[in-house]
Amino acid sequence: MGEFELIERYFKRGAHQLAREVALGIGDDCALLQPAPDTQIAISSDMLVQGRHFLPEVDPGALGHKALAVNLSDLAACGAQPRAFTLALALPQADERWLAAFSRGLFALADTHICELIGGDTTQGPLNICITVFGEVPVVSGRSQVLLRSGARPGDDVYVSGTLGDARLALDALNGKLDIPAALLAQARVRLEQPTPRVALGLALRGVASAAIDVSDGLLGDLGHVLKASNCGAIINTSVAIELLAACRHSGNANAAADRLQLSHEQRLSYVLAGGDDYELLFTAPATMRATVQAAARTSDTPVTRIGRIEAEPGLRLINARGKPVSGRFASFDHFA
Amino acid sequence: MGEFELIERYFKRGAHQLAREVALGIGDDCALLQPAPDTQIAISSDMLVQGRHFLPEVDPGALGHKALAVNLSDLAACGAQPRAFTLALALPQADERWLAAFSRGLFALADTHICELIGGDTTQGPLNICITVFGEVPVVSGRSQVLLRSGARPGDDVYVSGTLGDARLALDALNGKLDIPAALLAQARVRLEQPTPRVALGLALRGVASAAIDVSDGLLGDLGHVLKASNCGAIINTSVAIELLAACRHSGNANAAADRLQLSHEQRLSYVLAGGDDYELLFTAPATMRATVQAAARTSDTPVTRIGRIEAEPGLRLINARGKPVSGRFASFDHFA
Repeated sequence: MGEFELIERYFKRGAHQLAREVALGIGDDCALLQPAPDTQIAISSDMLVQGRHFLPEVDPGALGHKALAVNLSDLAACGAQPRAFTLALALPQADERWLAAFSRGLFALADTHICELIGGDTTQGPLNICITVFGEVPVVSGRSQVLLRSGARPGDDVYVSGTLGDARLALDALNGKLDIPAALLAQARVRLEQPTPRVALGLALRGVASAAIDVSDGLLGDLGHVLKASNCGAIINTSVAIELLAACRHSGNANAAADRLQLSHEQRLSYVLAGGDDYELLFTAPATMRATVQAAARTSDTPVTRIGRIEAEPGLRLINARGKPVSGRFASFDHFA
Repeated sequence: MGEFELIERYFKRGAHQLAREVALGIGDDCALLQPAPDTQIAISSDMLVQGRHFLPEVDPGALGHKALAVNLSDLAACGAQPRAFTLALALPQADERWLAAFSRGLFALADTHICELIGGDTTQGPLNICITVFGEVPVVSGRSQVLLRSGARPGDDVYVSGTLGDARLALDALNGKLDIPAALLAQARVRLEQPTPRVALGLALRGVASAAIDVSDGLLGDLGHVLKASNCGAIINTSVAIELLAACRHSGNANAAADRLQLSHEQRLSYVLAGGDDYELLFTAPATMRATVQAAARTSDTPVTRIGRIEAEPGLRLINARGKPVSGRFASFDHFA
């Protein structure tokens, strides 16, 4: 199967499916986007490499999902409405079964968000998936509705969506570093391999959140980016945060579950605070907005948890239920560390 | 050196350098483009893999140039004005000398076109460079000024810019398949490693060319794409085309030079018609536009040569100086062939 046949068979779809904003899709030297007036185009690009972002034995359908999901998660963090994406794919060989499953997983998620594949590239090489996504952000009265990392202010609440740490838990179990029950691994593995980008929440937080980021490198690392960009500090309540590990939460008594999983308190906290690959939204909002934030959570059908507060003093402080400082080294993920 | 430090040191530049259309550059979850009113965004993405698109021993500065050049060439083929690009980079290790040279080559070309690096990704993995470029195409009186593959009409002239085949000649010489003088190899190698995207010509051809494509897979293969998209055929004069191999042209008497290079007539023609990696523009224009095409060539300081004519009858016919059919199998490049 040649390059053009491969594109034709697995990635080119009928023109009738083009969204309004896509003036030209796959098949020419460029694709064309025609943005609506008073609109900014939000752009993000993520590259996934075997062994670093996914295991060799991963299901190709799940991989198709994840490759797009991690990009949509960036749009979500900016409050952008997904519109289109490009896919550049290096493959060791044109394996039809792999391609069929990969494209199915990819398009299933793309169709959920009416996000069009408009172009890209395929080549022979070590497996590498590079997706660039395009979303729309309205400009209202000359002001962009984008959510940035830089908008957090002292006194703002700190929130996180969904649950944290389960993707890393699954990764450690799959790598043989941890022994967990099969049913629990199956649940956690969905979080690792098929994360749900929080697009609806991102849209609902326009005009509500003061700052936002998606949690890909770990909660503390990504909160660090917000604090640096916003030039402030934060205090995080670990006794609230620790409840976010779904693997424990789903098993009735969380502490008993952690015991059964043979997770120490510090390990559990480490998964939550520094697990990575979560693709939840971490965001801040003024304390006066608490009801509005919960309304946005309901509108988007996405649970959010208030875990701390922004402070003027730089740095990140962790406290327990009694307000005492919590120490511990919770390293964030770095691709070159 | 960590991922964030790597980005900070080699790829993040001052905010003062942002172009008007770039509302937000590197440093948040997304970049933001704010297109001018009545503008379409042309988007293209190319992935470069070691061993397939470049040799392991390639100079990293030249590689930085080429990775962007092949993408700008797609914008040129659409008549789009380059504005911005994203870069996703997988590197075996964070080699500072390599990164310094690569980013220098990349930005030198980007600055020539005032094309801003607005975001991307870096990760550890087998060397892979994926660039996505963004250009602007005006919409005048509701009509896009984009150049497409599909606009060729019977009677139109067929043109190609610059010279063809030298990149492939250099590749064959570097791979030891061909022995050519060092001075000639040095010239041809520039064509292979540092191609010049024909952006100015693409802009000058707006409203002049009826169809356009960039020659990346070989003249005949890419002409085939135009013919398929335009639903017509073409006749190409090989006695004109064969003069486009610069390696022969620069050596005085072309046929004598070909002899010295030990190139048969058919080999020489094969380089021109099916070499690949040329990044010239192949375009069509009505015969009434000949003077206008030459004016566009002068304006953009880019030589163009008329090599044939579009015909209603499907298929591609090659003729010699005496109008006789030329036979020969000139395979086009396919990444999975």
